[in-house]
Amino acid sequence: MTNGKLILLRHGQSTWNESNQFTGWVDVDLTEKGEAEAKRGGEMLVEHNILPSVVYTSLLRRAIRTANIALNKADRHWIPVIRDWRLNERHYGALQGLNKAETKDKYGDEQFMEWRRSYGTPPPELADDAEYSQAEDVRYANLDTVPRTECLKDVVERFIPYFKEEILPRAQRGETVLIAAHGNSLRALVKYLDNISDEDIAGLNIPTGIPLVYEITESGEVVNPGGTYLDPEAAAAGAAAVAAQGGK
Amino acid sequence: MTNGKLILLRHGQSTWNESNQFTGWVDVDLTEKGEAEAKRGGEMLVEHNILPSVVYTSLLRRAIRTANIALNKADRHWIPVIRDWRLNERHYGALQGLNKAETKDKYGDEQFMEWRRSYGTPPPELADDAEYSQAEDVRYANLDTVPRTECLKDVVERFIPYFKEEILPRAQRGETVLIAAHGNSLRALVKYLDNISDEDIAGLNIPTGIPLVYEITESGEVVNPGGTYLDPEAAAAGAAAVAAQGGK
Repeated sequence: MTNGKLILLRHGQSTWNESNQFTGWVDVDLTEKGEAEAKRGGEMLVEHNILPSVVYTSLLRRAIRTANIALNKADRHWIPVIRDWRLNERHYGALQGLNKAETKDKYGDEQFMEWRRSYGTPPPELADDAEYSQAEDVRYANLDTVPRTECLKDVVERFIPYFKEEILPRAQRGETVLIAAHGNSLRALVKYLDNISDEDIAGLNIPTGIPLVYEITESGEVVNPGGTYLDPEAAAAGAAAVAAQGGK
Repeated sequence: MTNGKLILLRHGQSTWNESNQFTGWVDVDLTEKGEAEAKRGGEMLVEHNILPSVVYTSLLRRAIRTANIALNKADRHWIPVIRDWRLNERHYGALQGLNKAETKDKYGDEQFMEWRRSYGTPPPELADDAEYSQAEDVRYANLDTVPRTECLKDVVERFIPYFKEEILPRAQRGETVLIAAHGNSLRALVKYLDNISDEDIAGLNIPTGIPLVYEITESGEVVNPGGTYLDPEAAAAGAAAVAAQGGK
């Protein structure tokens, strides 16, 4: 049997990426640049003839639109779609809506980096009546509890069991699965696929808009550890740009 | 229990609507006008507070993008999506790709109207090796036979059993279901919902981009026969425009 494939695609620039605000579960749109990134991502799928047979997305507009635009470009707009909150970006707690540079200035480099990169320490909780809370958002009405903040460990704990039950078996059966999601939900996934330690995951940055392909055997093993970016040069530059975020 | 709702939404103008060509299963894109119609459809859903909890689409880009655009506008981009070929436009057989006005001139009014409107007479078959055939299209690979032509009766016979099994039960359970599809697949559905005869369905035209809402009881009865257009004036004008198609 042909090996299956997982295609990880991080959404392109959003309006709050552009304005340098913590986003999390706030449902902001793509910018024109983000739309162009999604188109380019779709073109790369065609150029490498890696065409998904099914797509998973988060419940957030920037990932959903990235998938729609990329798939339309790749002539795969018609494949089955599954959306699930477990693919959502990390909930950024009380930081949601704050400017990253201002937050860094106010709290200092150390606290800032801990909130952004520590595996187990979430930012302070966001109050349910705060402007950017999702406590009353109808799309999460079936959750037992809507998160008020999350660290990367929380994202691993909600996403990876879902991934193992719902997504990985498709790759094991030889399907090519597109996963259109977010910086931190994809970091959680890469941590699992590449067996990265809680410490080392802090240094991993995933660039936007560049498909990252993992080849998966029938038994669920990764054939190409670290995955394969469809544009490695652009990926390296993009990862460096993500790492530099928080600057002005 | 609250009654469920079916929202029928015919895609807006496509590139081949604009160039006056028979389209059928050829997967053409929306024009800018078509995109604007989809946005306006989404706005109407918001204005009437009729917000879908699930969406069904065909496998054709013009219906898929209409759903994506309308749902994004209505802040319902995150709802579950099901795509199925049974919602596709009628396959137009050997007419696919032909200019409507030229076809009318060449074959005469009577033959032209029979192809467009007769319930049981399909156009001539499209050869599998013809430019606009879907015989080799991977999205239909799981069908026993890919159609070579269809009349409206064929569309009823493929779509209505699927509708009764997959879609109607959701409305009976109180869900609000968006069905983003095509002139003839929606005519097939309206024929069923309103129990329109094989003869009378010829006179029914569905305008593009204007949501048509049927309220459905728990037992599956239609509360408002004929359905309710969310913009009745625009719907009347749009239906007249559809009826006039084939002119130059």
